[in-house]
Amino acid sequence: MRENVNVGLLGLGTVGTGVVKMIQRQQEQLFHQVGCSVSIKKVLVKNVDKERDVDVDRSLLTTDPYEVINDPEIDVVVEVMGGVEETRRYIIDALQLKKQVVTANKDLIALHGSELQKIAVDNGCDLFYEASVAGGVPIIRGLTEGLASDKIQKMMGIVNGTTNYILTKMSKEGLAYDSVLKEAQDLGFAESDPTSDVEGLDAARKMAILSRLAFSMDIELDDVSVRGMSNVTQEDLKYGNMLGYTMKLIGYAEQEDNRAEVSVQPTFLDNSHPLASVNNEYNAVYVYGEAVGETMFYGPGAGSLPTATSIVSDLLTVVKNMRLGVNGRSVLAPQFSRQLKSADERYAKYFIRLHVLDEVGVFAGLTQLFSDNSISFEKILQLPLDEKGLAEIVIVTHRASLANYENVLAKLSDLPVVNAVKSLYLVEGGGQK
Amino acid sequence: MRENVNVGLLGLGTVGTGVVKMIQRQQEQLFHQVGCSVSIKKVLVKNVDKERDVDVDRSLLTTDPYEVINDPEIDVVVEVMGGVEETRRYIIDALQLKKQVVTANKDLIALHGSELQKIAVDNGCDLFYEASVAGGVPIIRGLTEGLASDKIQKMMGIVNGTTNYILTKMSKEGLAYDSVLKEAQDLGFAESDPTSDVEGLDAARKMAILSRLAFSMDIELDDVSVRGMSNVTQEDLKYGNMLGYTMKLIGYAEQEDNRAEVSVQPTFLDNSHPLASVNNEYNAVYVYGEAVGETMFYGPGAGSLPTATSIVSDLLTVVKNMRLGVNGRSVLAPQFSRQLKSADERYAKYFIRLHVLDEVGVFAGLTQLFSDNSISFEKILQLPLDEKGLAEIVIVTHRASLANYENVLAKLSDLPVVNAVKSLYLVEGGGQK
Repeated sequence: MRENVNVGLLGLGTVGTGVVKMIQRQQEQLFHQVGCSVSIKKVLVKNVDKERDVDVDRSLLTTDPYEVINDPEIDVVVEVMGGVEETRRYIIDALQLKKQVVTANKDLIALHGSELQKIAVDNGCDLFYEASVAGGVPIIRGLTEGLASDKIQKMMGIVNGTTNYILTKMSKEGLAYDSVLKEAQDLGFAESDPTSDVEGLDAARKMAILSRLAFSMDIELDDVSVRGMSNVTQEDLKYGNMLGYTMKLIGYAEQEDNRAEVSVQPTFLDNSHPLASVNNEYNAVYVYGEAVGETMFYGPGAGSLPTATSIVSDLLTVVKNMRLGVNGRSVLAPQFSRQLKSADERYAKYFIRLHVLDEVGVFAGLTQLFSDNSISFEKILQLPLDEKGLAEIVIVTHRASLANYENVLAKLSDLPVVNAVKSLYLVEGGGQK
Repeated sequence: MRENVNVGLLGLGTVGTGVVKMIQRQQEQLFHQVGCSVSIKKVLVKNVDKERDVDVDRSLLTTDPYEVINDPEIDVVVEVMGGVEETRRYIIDALQLKKQVVTANKDLIALHGSELQKIAVDNGCDLFYEASVAGGVPIIRGLTEGLASDKIQKMMGIVNGTTNYILTKMSKEGLAYDSVLKEAQDLGFAESDPTSDVEGLDAARKMAILSRLAFSMDIELDDVSVRGMSNVTQEDLKYGNMLGYTMKLIGYAEQEDNRAEVSVQPTFLDNSHPLASVNNEYNAVYVYGEAVGETMFYGPGAGSLPTATSIVSDLLTVVKNMRLGVNGRSVLAPQFSRQLKSADERYAKYFIRLHVLDEVGVFAGLTQLFSDNSISFEKILQLPLDEKGLAEIVIVTHRASLANYENVLAKLSDLPVVNAVKSLYLVEGGGQK
């Protein structure tokens, strides 16, 4: 049996550095777990001469990816360089050379996961990607192994740390979106171009990966409907708070009779919901299984060492599989064909905030429009506005179909008594399931 | 390759019934995951004629355990009968007949886990027990696989649903222990003899299992120091609440330089701690890893189908291993010899509630005793008592060694100004780690 496994690393940024540190520090523990040593044999970097936060022998560094991929002594390729097109090519080439692959690349897996998985199986190789969703939280194992026997009906994830940090600060400290974003950027919690985070695209990629696994269905990234949180205002948070809700950017995935819906959108959670107390940059995924009921996985969504923990745990599984000679066997093709719910099959509760004329009969007109579309109210809040002649109305509806909501929204702005539709958010928890 | 795996079930109570239901309902899904069918071949019951909540062919039932264990066509024995001595014998016999074993039996694993694990490995068999801790929560996989690459430094678990239900009701509804216990018994959440739950013994068994795995050390049940929650009063909860704490029965396990401490005791958690919002009968295990930082696994701690989910997930792993021919390979002997911290190595913060004489100089005397033992105060609350001449004092200390606390406690009652030491609880979270 082999006495050492050689790892080639593509990338030595924040996460790559964490991987090297963990492998260096934990040699003894890793050896105990897998019965052989694990060594870094070669590392792809952009600049060989850069100062680094970790002690790597300079002779291991290369700027040529194929010095890693083609090295016959390298058994496992760990990809932590990011990017999609080029990286896809490297991983395909590595798999075709029968190298095991561990990656943290959510963009790549969201877009090309099914293709890469198939190539891995065809070549008898493992392809693991625990670190691609929710950094240090072992949610992918949770879905594919721990809850493997259950039928997952619903998942809700706080899977983007940047937006959770921003929303937590806005809620707890009453600060405006712009100023919290700036603070997050200064602290390094948000990118200088925050679009992918705040517009929900990053969360959408992770939800595509999770829902594919949870529902055993080939969900594509385009199937995820996305709405960001950059328009959330202090007013929204204030009225939500009065009604007992906390705002989170929620990745939502549900399936019924093997028809799925997946979305990312700002959502008011009832304060008693387990996700409502997940704060700051933390991530959590709430899973509702037919048999198990409610479970939740919580932890750091990013960071060098948390993400490296998931990568090295995947690496250990790969090495165990190598020693048992069973690589490439644990992957399953999706069980169900991809079917998405239509708008009249998607049911939800919504929070709607309006400015209306403060005059007699306004409420009757509103009520009529909603009830004509079979939507009833769970909560109503009406408050005077400083602006003369206007009132603030917040409505939380009972569950109704998205098709009906769309009808109402199309007509709402046309009602003469409605001055403005200020905001509309999904509501989860509290009352009916 | 085999086309069917036969399961023998020892026990058909609440959990056994759940296992049968899940295997019946999910045949197609199970087949998809493991590539062969899974059948129940024989079931040990106490009474063949009993009415049951599940449809099992009467010809499968037997009252003789060895009709299950000795059946050469049975591949996997699933033990859900409970009990220790007899059950240990059955499992040893099954393993020696090269049968794979899945069990939900925390008492057995806490007491004889190491012995059984060794016998399993010697016979090339799997022995899995995910369901023995926190029912439907895949915490054991989380520790042994998801966080396998990390060094776990600390774990805190709400691992007993009955006591969490009682404490939640006491905290939120202001009810006394006795009346909540009675209500829980009426609802079936508490046993008619609740000793094992409320005195912390059930939680201690689970913490022995978890700390053994997390620290890779042969922790024994006797190593767990245990204090129950039956003495917790409304007064304690009230003053804790004033200081920003929530009371939970916490299983606590920590290691430093491979020296461990494991305990179960009523604990005041800072309200911002992720475990503080785990309510009712839910379980959760908070894990602090050197690399990953804070993670938490949350879900139902008991119940027929949640527990069955863990058992059937274990069963699927066993069947996958059978098809790959790698049973009995995933188990590790502990890496570290068992070493426990002494009282002067165990550091903690404590909440101490006293009744003292309401006179000049009392506080000076108290302060002197604590500072003589190197214990300083983080929070102090003093309130007048209805009872004439007495005052209520609540002190939350900074971290200090258990040895020093024991010194203080031994002398506290002897101070002439101290009328009574009303309560003493561990405090976690808020301020220093």
